[in-house]
Amino acid sequence: MDFLSEIQSLDRGQTKKEIFRLIERLYPICRSITGNGLRETLSILSEVVPLAIHEVRSGEQANDWTVPPEWNIKDAWIKNSKGEKIVRFSDTNLHVLNYSEPVNKKVSLAELKKHLFTLPDKPGWVPYRTSYHNRNWGFCMSHKQFEQLEDETYQVFINSSLGPGSLTYGEFFVKGETGDEVLISTHICHPSLCNDNLSGIAVAAFAAAFLQKLKPKYSFRFLFVPATIGPITWLSRNEDKLKNIKYGLVLALLGDTGKFHYKKSRQADAEINFVVENVLRNKIADYKILNFSPYGYDERQYCSPGYNLPVGRLTRTPNGEYPEYHTSADNLDFVKGDKLVESLELLLHIFNTMENNASCLNLKPKGEPQLGKRGLFRSISGQGDVQEYQMALLWVLNLSDGEHSLLDISNEAAIDFSIIKQAAIALEKAKLLKQLD
Amino acid sequence: MDFLSEIQSLDRGQTKKEIFRLIERLYPICRSITGNGLRETLSILSEVVPLAIHEVRSGEQANDWTVPPEWNIKDAWIKNSKGEKIVRFSDTNLHVLNYSEPVNKKVSLAELKKHLFTLPDKPGWVPYRTSYHNRNWGFCMSHKQFEQLEDETYQVFINSSLGPGSLTYGEFFVKGETGDEVLISTHICHPSLCNDNLSGIAVAAFAAAFLQKLKPKYSFRFLFVPATIGPITWLSRNEDKLKNIKYGLVLALLGDTGKFHYKKSRQADAEINFVVENVLRNKIADYKILNFSPYGYDERQYCSPGYNLPVGRLTRTPNGEYPEYHTSADNLDFVKGDKLVESLELLLHIFNTMENNASCLNLKPKGEPQLGKRGLFRSISGQGDVQEYQMALLWVLNLSDGEHSLLDISNEAAIDFSIIKQAAIALEKAKLLKQLD
Amino acid sequence: MDFLSEIQSLDRGQTKKEIFRLIERLYPICRSITGNGLRETLSILSEVVPLAIHEVRSGEQANDWTVPPEWNIKDAWIKNSKGEKIVRFSDTNLHVLNYSEPVNKKVSLAELKKHLFTLPDKPGWVPYRTSYHNRNWGFCMSHKQFEQLEDETYQVFINSSLGPGSLTYGEFFVKGETGDEVLISTHICHPSLCNDNLSGIAVAAFAAAFLQKLKPKYSFRFLFVPATIGPITWLSRNEDKLKNIKYGLVLALLGDTGKFHYKKSRQADAEINFVVENVLRNKIADYKILNFSPYGYDERQYCSPGYNLPVGRLTRTPNGEYPEYHTSADNLDFVKGDKLVESLELLLHIFNTMENNASCLNLKPKGEPQLGKRGLFRSISGQGDVQEYQMALLWVLNLSDGEHSLLDISNEAAIDFSIIKQAAIALEKAKLLKQLD
Repeated sequence: MDFLSEIQSLDRGQTKKEIFRLIERLYPICRSITGNGLRETLSILSEVVPLAIHEVRSGEQANDWTVPPEWNIKDAWIKNSKGEKIVRFSDTNLHVLNYSEPVNKKVSLAELKKHLFTLPDKPGWVPYRTSYHNRNWGFCMSHKQFEQLEDETYQVFINSSLGPGSLTYGEFFVKGETGDEVLISTHICHPSLCNDNLSGIAVAAFAAAFLQKLKPKYSFRFLFVPATIGPITWLSRNEDKLKNIKYGLVLALLGDTGKFHYKKSRQADAEINFVVENVLRNKIADYKILNFSPYGYDERQYCSPGYNLPVGRLTRTPNGEYPEYHTSADNLDFVKGDKLVESLELLLHIFNTMENNASCLNLKPKGEPQLGKRGLFRSISGQGDVQEYQMALLWVLNLSDGEHSLLDISNEAAIDFSIIKQAAIALEKAKLLKQLD
Repeated sequence: MDFLSEIQSLDRGQTKKEIFRLIERLYPICRSITGNGLRETLSILSEVVPLAIHEVRSGEQANDWTVPPEWNIKDAWIKNSKGEKIVRFSDTNLHVLNYSEPVNKKVSLAELKKHLFTLPDKPGWVPYRTSYHNRNWGFCMSHKQFEQLEDETYQVFINSSLGPGSLTYGEFFVKGETGDEVLISTHICHPSLCNDNLSGIAVAAFAAAFLQKLKPKYSFRFLFVPATIGPITWLSRNEDKLKNIKYGLVLALLGDTGKFHYKKSRQADAEINFVVENVLRNKIADYKILNFSPYGYDERQYCSPGYNLPVGRLTRTPNGEYPEYHTSADNLDFVKGDKLVESLELLLHIFNTMENNASCLNLKPKGEPQLGKRGLFRSISGQGDVQEYQMALLWVLNLSDGEHSLLDISNEAAIDFSIIKQAAIALEKAKLLKQLD
Repeated sequence: MDFLSEIQSLDRGQTKKEIFRLIERLYPICRSITGNGLRETLSILSEVVPLAIHEVRSGEQANDWTVPPEWNIKDAWIKNSKGEKIVRFSDTNLHVLNYSEPVNKKVSLAELKKHLFTLPDKPGWVPYRTSYHNRNWGFCMSHKQFEQLEDETYQVFINSSLGPGSLTYGEFFVKGETGDEVLISTHICHPSLCNDNLSGIAVAAFAAAFLQKLKPKYSFRFLFVPATIGPITWLSRNEDKLKNIKYGLVLALLGDTGKFHYKKSRQADAEINFVVENVLRNKIADYKILNFSPYGYDERQYCSPGYNLPVGRLTRTPNGEYPEYHTSADNLDFVKGDKLVESLELLLHIFNTMENNASCLNLKPKGEPQLGKRGLFRSISGQGDVQEYQMALLWVLNLSDGEHSLLDISNEAAIDFSIIKQAAIALEKAKLLKQLD
């Protein structure tokens, strides 16, 4: 049950390979907010960590939303007048406007253009576009290709179905010693895009698998959900569980080479913010803290005013802030194995800090206790410096007054949480400290 | 009653001409803290906006002060031994020490110099000096002229009167829907100085005239008062009204080319501070916020500890911080029509923000409501950016929890208050929001 | 009883000579945490200010600590095989590891080296080292000498004694008008080191002597104590007095040429922090404020969580941050007379601020009172500037609402406390202000 040792004994090389292989398997699947792509994805994830798969029927109400018709797609293409398929779904599923209704007809170039989406400023890349809540059909292509389209008649074919079915999401739950829960949520609805969000999915799955080996203090709940409608559906069906959520994180975009960005929970003084900032400060050279804003990923839903849960968001480069975002360039080359492993390790250190934080009481609070006679301080004095571990002992003693947690002490002392924890353990053994409940 | 549309439909060119013409008419008048100059000034202002004129008799007590004798002046000059008038009140009323007692005698150069005021470091300009509370007589002249005075006998003549009379001030009041009041105060006691304070007087008068056309939520009270003794007199006679003052502003120095300076109310958390800062941040590129200090204009009186009203101060370059301050160089060339109009518009936006601020409640607070089906969100998704208006919708929904006003939301979101307000109106129409009382 | 005048009339030249002469007399004495060196030191200090000398027997319990055996030393040396004394205690007492047990034997070079302490990166200097709580013997020498030691047999001789005796500390107490106390503590256990801490000892002694001439409002208690065990012993025996401590300062390292560093009390909002910061800001060009940390000097004990007293620490360059720290180079050349006097004056201004701080009430709080008629404001107005003293009058009037002390007003106005105090006295004389209890 020693979290820290488990993290330190992680085989990084092996983990890197396994995470990357998982992403490679998931990459080709055409996901959306409903449909078989989700089922296939969750089935593969279940090989990493056993998931409970939930199906919620189309038409069911989830707060202000209705679970939409299920969307599935088999094939799609555009043929020119010579009968050549100039765009093929089988090349990349990004070519189809996600949630397109079925279509099979001939259209003029002018008509076709109303249904084409391109990126004029990134002419080589295919954009990712969706139309979930307005019935429509469309294709996405490179702007380069778009500019070469000739004024002829095209046949457009989308073999999709939109009808009664269900919304699918996966859930993994580890029961902890206490009733308090940690909620981890990641969106699974994007098709062939690696950083957004196979990176978040893979890191979450491996973190869940890691927890399986341990008996944590807190319960951990992992949600693998389609964006927006997924968490809203889950929230509306699990309101009785929300009071137990002590910490929460939305995970996304964890495989690019950019620096970490932590977006604070709407509750600015939520402890999750202090935990993540502490770990970033001590473990990562360069990172950025963002204030909450109501745009981004599913933190929008968890942090809506009717729920206002203590949920922050961890990404590397945020959504929309890298050129490859929501384009065909967010591919297997764009995400890096070592960045994925670093993200996983960071997440595990965040878990470690949650698990090991505590408030303690100095049992000899009048002056410093004599550490030397307990073997906790060097015997020759007079040097100008003092080691970080010995400073940690002094900080823990000085601030263990019932009003500061070990996390607070780590922040105040600017010393890594795990060194502070180690000092607290040593002081407890020496009967100078006791942990408060 | 739509404030914002009224501001937007303001004819700037015409307003600029009218403001400037008002200043030109007021410029030659010799004002002081009492006397006919004040009556003439208020009479001209009454052509812009109907003023109630108040007269308070000399000798009346106003807190620690006594209303002084009334001062009037007809003419003044200095003659040299050849009988030439070397200084003439008729050239500029700044030549006379304001509140000079009458004098008519021959004096040596040495004696004369005791009564002369100049600016050695600005040798071409005539200073503005006063002696309200110590009986004295004197002349102000350019230092250049002073240095050329010959050692001869001079005749000094001041045809002034100091005696029982009254202190005059003007008041304009628009009744609003609620009992809460906005207090606007500007000093009217300075003689031929344009920025200090014909600029403040003119901007206040035009803002008052603007309000006449509307039916505002708050009552607005405009005071045109001689500095110091004016507000102290008004305060001592109107203590029953003070509890209604929700916002207050002292206006001065609004026609120079310097940037805006807002000086906070003594109550650092008074809402007036947040309103003005919000409007400056959103409407003005470059401005400065000053903390309260007990020196300056009449905010000193409104913010004295026995009243401690929520009154801030709006100027461009503050008192004493431009070379022309309190000199003959603060003339019709020094103030600019477009700066006066910009000041007026800023003030009206401040009024607009006061009038339109409100706290609202999100009626669908659990997750985001589905904006798409209400026509409030774009139908094709996936782009990295989102427009400011759509962000405004999300911010208003997220923070309308009864604890944030629209002003707070504008600050938090860094979005112009009028866009936030527009979003709130749209959400209210869609029955997603209701305004709290 | 006018503190400020007393400070201003201090003869700096004479004081500089006297402080330096005191340090010269104390420099050669071999001090430790117990023993005759302490008694001799306190006896010499008693010539400056009469001290109560306390003796606490070895073996007595002081919270978690036990008063150690008393250590005394007569002589010590190392002889090489030729019988030459290559290290002599009589050259500098730093040569002996402080608290060395007695030894007299022949040892090989290898054995000797286990008991030698040097500074490889400062090869010409002898370090200061101690072993209070582990029985040991040792010598300190320059690394240059260490490197020239030949492989031969050495005789080591330390004529010291460790046995029942007592711990000695000095106390000086001036009774004030009120029950509240100011605690000043300085450590006296270091042997021949000038800045650490003959500087702190000398400044404390002269400040105490200064107070003897006055009848202060607060009681002042000066402790001259061996580090760590000294304050812990005093605290454990005087718990009934602790509730009276309103302000406290640990003094050390006050003679070097570095800038002042004030380390805040553990209680971040303790008034001592505001007092010292105010005086530093107004009297000293360049200084630094440090947050509390549980390492340093005896503030560690006063600020332990079981006491948590409002005690800060004043030094010039902090411990460990100058190369000469705890070496033979911290000698009579290292401390400067004018720096010692400047430190003394700063401390006296801190005392002056404590003594003269008060909360006052403006008796004419509605608007400004008319200062001109009371001779408190210039009679000719209109100039852009206003003098600092006149600003002080306005600030004191504006903020004397019962919620701001004169210290708060000095901070808010950024005006020296003594000018604020002078303004308060003038306003009290004019019956515009009264001091609150």
